[in-house]
Amino acid sequence: MDRRTLLAGGSMLVAAQTLSLKAEARSKLSPATADDEHFMQLALAQAKDGDFPFGAVIVRDGEVLAQGHNSGKRLGDPTAHGEMMAIRAFLKEHDVSALKETTLYTSGEPCVMCMGAIIWCGIKRVVFAASIEELSTRIGQVDITAEEIADATPFATVEITSGVLSEEALRLFPAAKP
Amino acid sequence: MDRRTLLAGGSMLVAAQTLSLKAEARSKLSPATADDEHFMQLALAQAKDGDFPFGAVIVRDGEVLAQGHNSGKRLGDPTAHGEMMAIRAFLKEHDVSALKETTLYTSGEPCVMCMGAIIWCGIKRVVFAASIEELSTRIGQVDITAEEIADATPFATVEITSGVLSEEALRLFPAAKP
Repeated sequence: MDRRTLLAGGSMLVAAQTLSLKAEARSKLSPATADDEHFMQLALAQAKDGDFPFGAVIVRDGEVLAQGHNSGKRLGDPTAHGEMMAIRAFLKEHDVSALKETTLYTSGEPCVMCMGAIIWCGIKRVVFAASIEELSTRIGQVDITAEEIADATPFATVEITSGVLSEEALRLFPAAKP
Repeated sequence: MDRRTLLAGGSMLVAAQTLSLKAEARSKLSPATADDEHFMQLALAQAKDGDFPFGAVIVRDGEVLAQGHNSGKRLGDPTAHGEMMAIRAFLKEHDVSALKETTLYTSGEPCVMCMGAIIWCGIKRVVFAASIEELSTRIGQVDITAEEIADATPFATVEITSGVLSEEALRLFPAAKP
């Protein structure tokens, strides 16, 4: 078989895989709303206080119910990402069932850990600024997207909106990683 | 192009992808050691105390430094998986840098959240009993393996050993999920 045949076979396989993923998708890409930039500004303000520049806020019906920023160094806890800190703050004040109607705004696309936490907590919608692909030019990232994780989850649906104020989020990092 | 050519193309692509993954792999599959069954028994004992039957222990140089079991219901915190509880217990008593020489034993293959936490914490090795594929016959799972997450992580290497006492771990679940 020559190279041309191999590539043609590959393209058809890729097309089939995409269709199959769409049919089973558990993520639901939703467009940005009028309020999204406002709440993302609050997440960016949180990020400015982070040990690494990541911040998150949890919102329901236009009200900020919890917020958090990366506290990995000050707590000596590498799991203290902005999203995890916001979820921990939320659970101190509210019952977990109240998370089901919330939107989590985060300055960076949730990593595998945070997206897993978002799914287990039943958070309804995630809005992020900078993508993992963009963030990986500044800081080490696990190369699996939030959408890929949502699509691999048969028991829940998470709405995802990406790219809200992503340039502002990336500007919080001092420079490209070495 | 007929079906035979497509399949041949597919096989060659799959072979190439496997080679490429191996070249870039960040997981390192390691065989079970003589001590692994002993420490997995301790993780299974933890699992028996869990809200859901999942438990974990963190070991260094033959010494158990922390343990945890699923406490999602009693804490009202769906992120309180066995592995997360063991990591939280560890960080209360030890500096995070001490995690780098540890092995985490867990009765169930770490989910995306827990595997992300394991990676961010720099844990050296993970040994699990039941796989995500096996667990998904009993309880909802995110269909991404620990090895896939490790392989998507360019900044760290995690040793993974699977299938130690997996039948015992699965027997902790009452029945197949409806």
